Amino acid sequence: MEKQTIIDISWPIQPTMTTYKNKNDVHITINKTFEENHVRESSLCCGMHTGTHVDAPAHFLANGSTIDQMDLTKLTGTCLVIDCTQAQESIEKEMLATYPIHPGDIILLKTSNSATASTAPHRDAFVYLSAQGASYLVEKNIHAVGIDYLGIERNQPNHETHLTLLQKDIPIIEGLRLGHVKPGRYFFVCLPLALQGAEAAPARAILIPQAMPS
Amino acid sequence: MEKQTIIDISWPIQPTMTTYKNKNDVHITINKTFEENHVRESSLCCGMHTGTHVDAPAHFLANGSTIDQMDLTKLTGTCLVIDCTQAQESIEKEMLATYPIHPGDIILLKTSNSATASTAPHRDAFVYLSAQGASYLVEKNIHAVGIDYLGIERNQPNHETHLTLLQKDIPIIEGLRLGHVKPGRYFFVCLPLALQGAEAAPARAILIPQAMPS
Repeated sequence: MEKQTIIDISWPIQPTMTTYKNKNDVHITINKTFEENHVRESSLCCGMHTGTHVDAPAHFLANGSTIDQMDLTKLTGTCLVIDCTQAQESIEKEMLATYPIHPGDIILLKTSNSATASTAPHRDAFVYLSAQGASYLVEKNIHAVGIDYLGIERNQPNHETHLTLLQKDIPIIEGLRLGHVKPGRYFFVCLPLALQGAEAAPARAILIPQAMPS
Repeated sequence: MEKQTIIDISWPIQPTMTTYKNKNDVHITINKTFEENHVRESSLCCGMHTGTHVDAPAHFLANGSTIDQMDLTKLTGTCLVIDCTQAQESIEKEMLATYPIHPGDIILLKTSNSATASTAPHRDAFVYLSAQGASYLVEKNIHAVGIDYLGIERNQPNHETHLTLLQKDIPIIEGLRLGHVKPGRYFFVCLPLALQGAEAAPARAILIPQAMPS
């Protein structure tokens, strides 16, 4: 089998990484060093919303399903990376409507957020998806949506963007890194950790250009 | 595009899960509850070798590469699930040699370990891959090897199985769950968290039957 090319679109996890609202809740502990133990062992503490992660409906819905109940087929398949780098504030329906979005697509929103270093302090003014934009994606029957910042909306009081998507069981992938990715179609795989009963989980996300279906 | 079937082969992560040598180092903290905050937020602490995880060469080699440097193409591609359920102690070359192993294959060893509950106390006497079996897989130019327990060897003093594989930059996937998987060929994806500088990382692993190359 021909060797695949893989494009990693995950946020590097480390203690100095950008964290939402500068929580600084990522800690790595070295438990055994090679010098002392001839083996390296370390451990991790972090919020579920660290770096690249997936929000499940339970994040914002009383009876929403949890991340371990998520249908992984929604996080694996054809994706369309949309160029939203000209958006200054929010991504609206009008911008999305210029792209051919098919039912079952996974939509990744590439914005100017991706130009920010992965260790920069958190910015409140990141580019986000408006509630109206989210409604449009729901109408289009997408499988999932991802964005290149640690939130998909700016802590709006009613969390309308989250609610619009999660009420339809559409997973939200936050914390992607898309600066090195050309807009277009790819095969996408995002695998969140199998955390039982959690409202979200850290994940790794990749694009595989050659695995596109014909 | 036709909807994929996905077989999850990951170990469920939760505080009561089996941990290596019963370390019990998996902790989930609820930071915000829906009842009080109208949002759920939680966080995780765990060792890098929790549940399904990938060992990088840095785990046992002085100058070994770390998990963030791992070539993800070695963890994505055609896999062969080998029936080792008759092995009582170790998996030896003789058992592996009865299967058609191709260069670039990812080899998953299904053993009687998978019959154990995912929350059972740690068993020292798990079925493991012998150093001789590991040497055979190296000769076959495999891309990666996975096993259905939290170690690929029983803490052998010289860690020969680990060293044989990691010296050749062959990732070791530990903590798979294969009880529900028929031996045979699949498309495999295993994505470890993008932990910078770590010797290993928790991962999610799946099989996609339909994505097999022709």
